[in-house]
Amino acid sequence: MARVFADSGHEVDVFEKRSHIAGNCYDEYDQHGVLIHKYGPHYFRTDSEILLEYLSRFARWRSASYHVQAMIDGELVPLPISLSTLTTLTGRVFNEQELALYLQNARVGIGTSVEGQFEPKNAEEQCLVRFGTEIYQKFFLHYTAKQWGILPKDLSPSVTARIPLRYNFDQRYPEEKYQVLPSDGLTAMFKRMLFHPKIQVKINTIVGSEEIAALKLKYSLIFYTGPIDQYFNCVYGQLSYRSLYFEWKNFSFPYLWPCVQINYPNEHPYTRCVEIKHATGQLISSTTVCYEHPVRYCQDSTTEPYYPMLTQDNLQLLERYNVMVDEESVGSTPVHFVGRLAEYRYYNMDQILLKAYNLANMLV
Amino acid sequence: MARVFADSGHEVDVFEKRSHIAGNCYDEYDQHGVLIHKYGPHYFRTDSEILLEYLSRFARWRSASYHVQAMIDGELVPLPISLSTLTTLTGRVFNEQELALYLQNARVGIGTSVEGQFEPKNAEEQCLVRFGTEIYQKFFLHYTAKQWGILPKDLSPSVTARIPLRYNFDQRYPEEKYQVLPSDGLTAMFKRMLFHPKIQVKINTIVGSEEIAALKLKYSLIFYTGPIDQYFNCVYGQLSYRSLYFEWKNFSFPYLWPCVQINYPNEHPYTRCVEIKHATGQLISSTTVCYEHPVRYCQDSTTEPYYPMLTQDNLQLLERYNVMVDEESVGSTPVHFVGRLAEYRYYNMDQILLKAYNLANMLV
Repeated sequence: MARVFADSGHEVDVFEKRSHIAGNCYDEYDQHGVLIHKYGPHYFRTDSEILLEYLSRFARWRSASYHVQAMIDGELVPLPISLSTLTTLTGRVFNEQELALYLQNARVGIGTSVEGQFEPKNAEEQCLVRFGTEIYQKFFLHYTAKQWGILPKDLSPSVTARIPLRYNFDQRYPEEKYQVLPSDGLTAMFKRMLFHPKIQVKINTIVGSEEIAALKLKYSLIFYTGPIDQYFNCVYGQLSYRSLYFEWKNFSFPYLWPCVQINYPNEHPYTRCVEIKHATGQLISSTTVCYEHPVRYCQDSTTEPYYPMLTQDNLQLLERYNVMVDEESVGSTPVHFVGRLAEYRYYNMDQILLKAYNLANMLV
Repeated sequence: MARVFADSGHEVDVFEKRSHIAGNCYDEYDQHGVLIHKYGPHYFRTDSEILLEYLSRFARWRSASYHVQAMIDGELVPLPISLSTLTTLTGRVFNEQELALYLQNARVGIGTSVEGQFEPKNAEEQCLVRFGTEIYQKFFLHYTAKQWGILPKDLSPSVTARIPLRYNFDQRYPEEKYQVLPSDGLTAMFKRMLFHPKIQVKINTIVGSEEIAALKLKYSLIFYTGPIDQYFNCVYGQLSYRSLYFEWKNFSFPYLWPCVQINYPNEHPYTRCVEIKHATGQLISSTTVCYEHPVRYCQDSTTEPYYPMLTQDNLQLLERYNVMVDEESVGSTPVHFVGRLAEYRYYNMDQILLKAYNLANMLV
């Protein structure tokens, strides 16, 4: 957004709470020289050629291969659930018809053999009617419980509704056509994007509700990307988020794993181990992996808010804040709330980039 | 073939020159406990459900991912040539139209912009008209020269005619739908196949032309799978083959490479480095890789005949031997010539397995 406005001749100030740009997309070289994704892996992928064309002003690209496997009963099994998964899991080569039949049988205990004929009330029922008991228990039950800190039966069906199911052998994790990363990393791309005579970036700058009042006097338009509840001093109470504790480990050999991400649904306190070198394509003799331990987000601790917790309570709270958001969007200095935290909504990288790009172009 | 005949009630004797079964598909655990493919990687894949169904009597399977990258200018670039390759090679994200345009321009120097409008006289022209100069020089020129010991311009266009070119981002190396390996290895599958009361396997048994004469008195049908010229005592001269010297190296860490095969078109005497753990899926703390050095096959040395050299001279020689092969297929004990060596023809695993299966069923 800053770049779109700057390119149109506007002066733009960017206030950044952290000591660096690029938000959670930030990547950096660690002390061992390995390029890491500091706030968790950002597997950039998109179907939007418009977005790619715009970003290509600031990046050269490399094709990335995002492959994920789950450790199940001591064996690595490809994800997402596909013919590959069932083949390795059962030892029988599955084709489309056999998967359909398998799922039809697996659903029988749920009281239906057809996914659409059953209205799941929670994430557990949602998984069960989609995948049946065996896959649910091996892949999703414990993983979801670790990730969210509550059981799937207490989560909205929407949380697991978009888990892919593939009637083919495609082992690429995302569905999107273009799966690429900037050749020299994400931070470098954002740095070039912000490198413009009309853009000033002020890092280490916290903007709370008091500062906003002052900024409104100076600026004609404001985009807020922090947590929506904190903007309003949490007057109605705090929205809850899941956070992650990242446990980094460097090894002095090339690769620990055969692919970028290993999920541990059933063992260990961490949900997954990410070896980002597989995505960045960096050729270096050592490797750094990251074990992700899900934790509760606490506003006054060092935890970061990563995942909005879409429970009934939070969604009701969000509605109340959204009324105030609407009021902020009018007036002499409109404030727009953009992004995962400001909208309390999960976005992939390309989704929020495209949204920001379109919004900026609409308002510029 | 042995199993099909045995299952139909015939007594079968298998004479095996080597000290083990399974031919070049033989895999074994090396001294470090790593399951290796001793005679080069055998990436089993097939489109034939008939073949898979038959083999499934003798194997449980796991989904294998066969990914190949080439080391080009110090960077790993995905193969086969696809939108992924061009994206990483150029730093620009390619789509279908851009690849078509790129190839159209790249072909201009060859005197055409359309592949089909040009009749290549040799492998060099074949690659040039398919891929253009840049890709030919970076990926194929030196690799082919190393592999065959002669320049592409001295090779038949058929040698490079089937190199794939993909207008998508699919990074799986083979095209076939089913890409799987037996969970406990290829040798184990063949062992179960041969485990039958009516099959006798005699290892360390060389069958030359003299022995054949004796065998004809004992058996009603013979399948010969050795080199076609050696069956006839090389009366017209020797057919030539390319061979490989395998340089094995074990490392006491999990993985050396991010995928099963790294091609070195331009550096080193070896053509590729194979890290078979990526295909077998074995989870073990050390890894064994194999550097493949192409060498000339010499009948009386320890080299093995791997690749028929399809030159004009050899093909003419083959025709003369084939006349004699035809004569062997009749008489009271017909001899059938089956396989890469006996037919002097390149087969993938699934192709020769299916051919053998069909032939056996026809003759049984």
